[in-house]
Amino acid sequence: MSIPTKMHAAVLYGQNDLRVQDYSVPAPGPLEVLLKVYACAICGTDPRLIGHGWKPMPNYGTFIPGHEYSGQVVAIGEGVSQFQVGDRVAIESHKGCGHCVNCKRGRYTICLNYGKPETGHRHYGFTSNGGYAQYVVNHISNLYKIPDSVSYEEAALITTAACVHFALDNIGGLLGGENVAVLGPGPIGLMAVQLVKALGATKVILIGTRDERLAMGRQLGADVIVNSTRQDPVQVVKDETDGLGAELIVECSGHPVAAAQAIEMAMRGARISFVGDPVEMPQINLKKFVLDDLRAAGVRGEGMADCARSLALLGTGKLCVKPLITHHFPLEEINEGLQTFIQRKGGALKVIIQPNGCE
Amino acid sequence: MSIPTKMHAAVLYGQNDLRVQDYSVPAPGPLEVLLKVYACAICGTDPRLIGHGWKPMPNYGTFIPGHEYSGQVVAIGEGVSQFQVGDRVAIESHKGCGHCVNCKRGRYTICLNYGKPETGHRHYGFTSNGGYAQYVVNHISNLYKIPDSVSYEEAALITTAACVHFALDNIGGLLGGENVAVLGPGPIGLMAVQLVKALGATKVILIGTRDERLAMGRQLGADVIVNSTRQDPVQVVKDETDGLGAELIVECSGHPVAAAQAIEMAMRGARISFVGDPVEMPQINLKKFVLDDLRAAGVRGEGMADCARSLALLGTGKLCVKPLITHHFPLEEINEGLQTFIQRKGGALKVIIQPNGCE
Amino acid sequence: MSIPTKMHAAVLYGQNDLRVQDYSVPAPGPLEVLLKVYACAICGTDPRLIGHGWKPMPNYGTFIPGHEYSGQVVAIGEGVSQFQVGDRVAIESHKGCGHCVNCKRGRYTICLNYGKPETGHRHYGFTSNGGYAQYVVNHISNLYKIPDSVSYEEAALITTAACVHFALDNIGGLLGGENVAVLGPGPIGLMAVQLVKALGATKVILIGTRDERLAMGRQLGADVIVNSTRQDPVQVVKDETDGLGAELIVECSGHPVAAAQAIEMAMRGARISFVGDPVEMPQINLKKFVLDDLRAAGVRGEGMADCARSLALLGTGKLCVKPLITHHFPLEEINEGLQTFIQRKGGALKVIIQPNGCE
Amino acid sequence: MSIPTKMHAAVLYGQNDLRVQDYSVPAPGPLEVLLKVYACAICGTDPRLIGHGWKPMPNYGTFIPGHEYSGQVVAIGEGVSQFQVGDRVAIESHKGCGHCVNCKRGRYTICLNYGKPETGHRHYGFTSNGGYAQYVVNHISNLYKIPDSVSYEEAALITTAACVHFALDNIGGLLGGENVAVLGPGPIGLMAVQLVKALGATKVILIGTRDERLAMGRQLGADVIVNSTRQDPVQVVKDETDGLGAELIVECSGHPVAAAQAIEMAMRGARISFVGDPVEMPQINLKKFVLDDLRAAGVRGEGMADCARSLALLGTGKLCVKPLITHHFPLEEINEGLQTFIQRKGGALKVIIQPNGCE
Repeated sequence: MSIPTKMHAAVLYGQNDLRVQDYSVPAPGPLEVLLKVYACAICGTDPRLIGHGWKPMPNYGTFIPGHEYSGQVVAIGEGVSQFQVGDRVAIESHKGCGHCVNCKRGRYTICLNYGKPETGHRHYGFTSNGGYAQYVVNHISNLYKIPDSVSYEEAALITTAACVHFALDNIGGLLGGENVAVLGPGPIGLMAVQLVKALGATKVILIGTRDERLAMGRQLGADVIVNSTRQDPVQVVKDETDGLGAELIVECSGHPVAAAQAIEMAMRGARISFVGDPVEMPQINLKKFVLDDLRAAGVRGEGMADCARSLALLGTGKLCVKPLITHHFPLEEINEGLQTFIQRKGGALKVIIQPNGCE
Repeated sequence: MSIPTKMHAAVLYGQNDLRVQDYSVPAPGPLEVLLKVYACAICGTDPRLIGHGWKPMPNYGTFIPGHEYSGQVVAIGEGVSQFQVGDRVAIESHKGCGHCVNCKRGRYTICLNYGKPETGHRHYGFTSNGGYAQYVVNHISNLYKIPDSVSYEEAALITTAACVHFALDNIGGLLGGENVAVLGPGPIGLMAVQLVKALGATKVILIGTRDERLAMGRQLGADVIVNSTRQDPVQVVKDETDGLGAELIVECSGHPVAAAQAIEMAMRGARISFVGDPVEMPQINLKKFVLDDLRAAGVRGEGMADCARSLALLGTGKLCVKPLITHHFPLEEINEGLQTFIQRKGGALKVIIQPNGCE
Repeated sequence: MSIPTKMHAAVLYGQNDLRVQDYSVPAPGPLEVLLKVYACAICGTDPRLIGHGWKPMPNYGTFIPGHEYSGQVVAIGEGVSQFQVGDRVAIESHKGCGHCVNCKRGRYTICLNYGKPETGHRHYGFTSNGGYAQYVVNHISNLYKIPDSVSYEEAALITTAACVHFALDNIGGLLGGENVAVLGPGPIGLMAVQLVKALGATKVILIGTRDERLAMGRQLGADVIVNSTRQDPVQVVKDETDGLGAELIVECSGHPVAAAQAIEMAMRGARISFVGDPVEMPQINLKKFVLDDLRAAGVRGEGMADCARSLALLGTGKLCVKPLITHHFPLEEINEGLQTFIQRKGGALKVIIQPNGCE
Repeated sequence: MSIPTKMHAAVLYGQNDLRVQDYSVPAPGPLEVLLKVYACAICGTDPRLIGHGWKPMPNYGTFIPGHEYSGQVVAIGEGVSQFQVGDRVAIESHKGCGHCVNCKRGRYTICLNYGKPETGHRHYGFTSNGGYAQYVVNHISNLYKIPDSVSYEEAALITTAACVHFALDNIGGLLGGENVAVLGPGPIGLMAVQLVKALGATKVILIGTRDERLAMGRQLGADVIVNSTRQDPVQVVKDETDGLGAELIVECSGHPVAAAQAIEMAMRGARISFVGDPVEMPQINLKKFVLDDLRAAGVRGEGMADCARSLALLGTGKLCVKPLITHHFPLEEINEGLQTFIQRKGGALKVIIQPNGCE
């Protein structure tokens, strides 16, 4: 494949100063590949990052954000044998250093060398360049081949599913036949609804504040939807579970009130997965947590190679991401894409940036 | 409800000497209920038990076998508050003593007081009277309410599913997105196919020796079927998994050759669930087991209250047992039913005895 | 053994109105035994219970509290074969109903029928009569034989250890070679220090506010002690762990501030066991919990038959409870014993009531 | 530090043809260090490898075996920040490729790219050069700093302990208070005895065929020793456990008979760890495995960074390896060392090669 020396990329120059410009196409190093990006989805963390920056980020004027993307392998670096030019691949954003004790135990999303690129750690789109560009370099440990039945833009959302998949992994799995409450019908919550259904959940109760998203949740498999501005979600969960509470709760909203409710709606012995990343500190009923033998686990992104699991479910049609994709923009209009996403214009849910046009 | 004092029951008088006769209707003790049996399925262990007897069995001339049944609560004993007359219930056959260390840890199927009824242990149809009768007494710890959408005869097969459900529980669960091999397309293997699919398995490879059962397996969800009289199942599994082997293997046949193959077809790091109960001792490749970090777990029946999980999946249509039911007989014709089952007459798979006629 | 018809017992007549009086010696029912109580320890929950009562408690004027006791079997009920007259036994306080889904899965401390004695549930000293009496009836599922090398009063403290043992069980165990922080050097925290050491912890950091208890903690095995009124415990833990934080945190204090600190001092990927039962609701750093993939589990008392594990360690000298026992009182002086305990007179830690004199 | 260009190394030229000769000192690449080897222990797999070679081995005439070693960092490659010149380090022999699904999940000992050095995989002393040399290059993911209290030769044995540590990890841990049977009192079995004791085992029963090794086992903590040439180990284990069997069995011998006995001596619900790597295929009682809900796991070497756990226990004196070290040889006498080990001359247990003299 012919690879140009220059590409278009969205470079961050300062707070909320993202500029599409020419940029040198990077070259893959050992065990890396060069991807031609066909889809990069806007994630809720992008506006925060673009708006405020953060410490372990590359310098303004050099940094390309974007961490939910997919593309085609167009060049391979030294030592790459698992992938070849032409492969269609999805990525996960975390790559651990590979040698700290957490990485060695498979917990690379919480690499002890997070944010230290000199150790080999990468968090694409956060601490190294990401997918709001026509080309991006990725280490092969982040790549997953896309099943033929899955499009690039669907594959770009794989981490939305895999994040929940890993959350379930981290909290001890799901063996089917359980009642599950999901809080927060954003993209992650909507994937959570589908995923727990695909893994055998019996009754799924989705809780949120926006009727249109709740309605989409019902369409995607939620058995019960609760608008918490009108109903007490804790009471509804109890009513729907013979007074027992949910056996598994997946908190995806990041709201401190929802986090507190997650505990209140738990059955004795339940598991709670905290996926939403809250800005404010919730006040929680630790007494109930203790007396009811509750278990909880947090999750930072899509770990334990669970992207492979999610992609497999996507490939067989058990997960469905198309309804989440509401808008598309070319790379040149990324700032409009971001505004659409932030302001939820036209009911925006997932907004896809296409740096190389429609594939 | 009016309850007679006498009922019809199939009583075992000696090896292969099962006689349908009058029998006193038992009375439920504390925390027990009396069930009117509407369906009792013949299990592969029944012919063995009826043919040879076994040590912890009640005396010949008094013992009523049958351990896969369902029915309606018609009387309740002292202290019963969870169930009431009229409830439709499925049963599991094991009831632990409740106070040995295994029972206290939830592992009642391997109760340390197995076969000692004086400690409170019961294995209905094995060490105490079972379901080949118009009425049977059961402790409430063995009962599960049947969802409205599930018939009695479907509910009678719940342990066939729950046995596999518990097997998965015991081996560490199934988180979806995995390739699974199932050996032995009998009733348990056919439920295993459905269950792993319902829990998110990607590709299910079913291995057996009878084409008609393999064909049913495909109909119930198997992606690949292998007749091991014509193909090498180990090779097929490798071919179907990019040479890696299956991530999860469920051995349901009880054949020593299949048990040995289960190890040979395992991916590095795979989990193997041994559900089939083999008469002969297999010779296994322990070297591979060690060098590939394999994990294995056996399972004696349906534990950890996993019947509740299986019933929930049955109630929502994710599991389907009807195709497994091939024959029905009234209690009076139980011996003909047994012969049909043993000789697989007319492709017999699951044979249902109806002690109280069609419901 | 000759058993009197009347005994002395401490009966609760109202808030803080505990009277030692004559009481009928109870008779053991099926699967129950009668114990002659030699030691009953005062627990931190006793003053709360005696001071305020609570809903599922038996009526004032009939209720005998006390839930940390041991004694000798002096009579057995119907069906008891595992124990015989003369056996020395320790007890755990929770007995589940045995037939709810939680009990069936081994989680009897969170029995779904908690507080409903008609279902078979018992919480001795809370919802049925306990050990502040010369005799008490117990179900055999609550009994553990005492190793010869262990005295009655040591055995009375077994749940103090087993509560932590179960907490570790619930949070995924301890495989040795880890740095552990323990918050709260009360009896439970002091047992936690010993237990994690006995299970291979490398460095144990004990945090509290009372120097004398911290000093005892050091004597019992803590490598580092921190008085949080003078030092920042989060900083000390980090300093002692190369800046990483503790891999396991056992929160035993029940203070909301300590609960919040437990999260702050956690290493990425750490496990937090919440044993202390807090009255106030802590405000916690859920952001860190999520981003660091933390796991937490609560624990209500001594479950999963872990009393057997703790007793075994006590029997081999790996755990040591004697230093925790500071005072003894005869049953007649129980109110003085309670005051000694509450006001920590003479450095009171564990106060033992001896309803049948020194054994 | 001054590093020579040439060193002495033991190079394998053919079956049982190991020659000490001059060899170029290797240079560390990115994320690698150069070690000066102070101790390299002979492992039971060395004579097999030296005697027969194996497929993924480097060419005869170039290959330096040895995989249990320790040394001092004398040079560092590009990107190394965690280690510096002068550090004393122990190594583990497995380094996964880091990007296959097994590596990503922390299971690098069963890397799917095992034996393919071009992918980044290394198995030092097996598929790349090892420690029978004055210098060796290692990737930093294999290195662990040695506590000050631990000598080089003690640290060289860390994988002997860590292999068992990981075996326990793989089989679900050890929570203390359990009866454990260990089969095979070789170096690994003797470490297993100590390790399970350090993790709270109650009664440890060690089984073997050589009285002197069993005697050492007793000295290192075994409560009961059984010479299986004179006693039936299955019967002894039952006698020592109230007829129940052992709750945890660690099979370290690799004998097919012992592997079969491991199952026979298991308590209902027990866990069996297969550490010994058997040449012959055992015939096992799968019926008991199934009916008793047994669980088993194999283990290929020291994974999950459990070397860190073992080193911590070694550093605090909870593990003790000195008694296992019976002989020392300079590198020049490695063949005599091998013969001493193979023929167990002078009761040889662990034989240490010192390529750089006594440190």
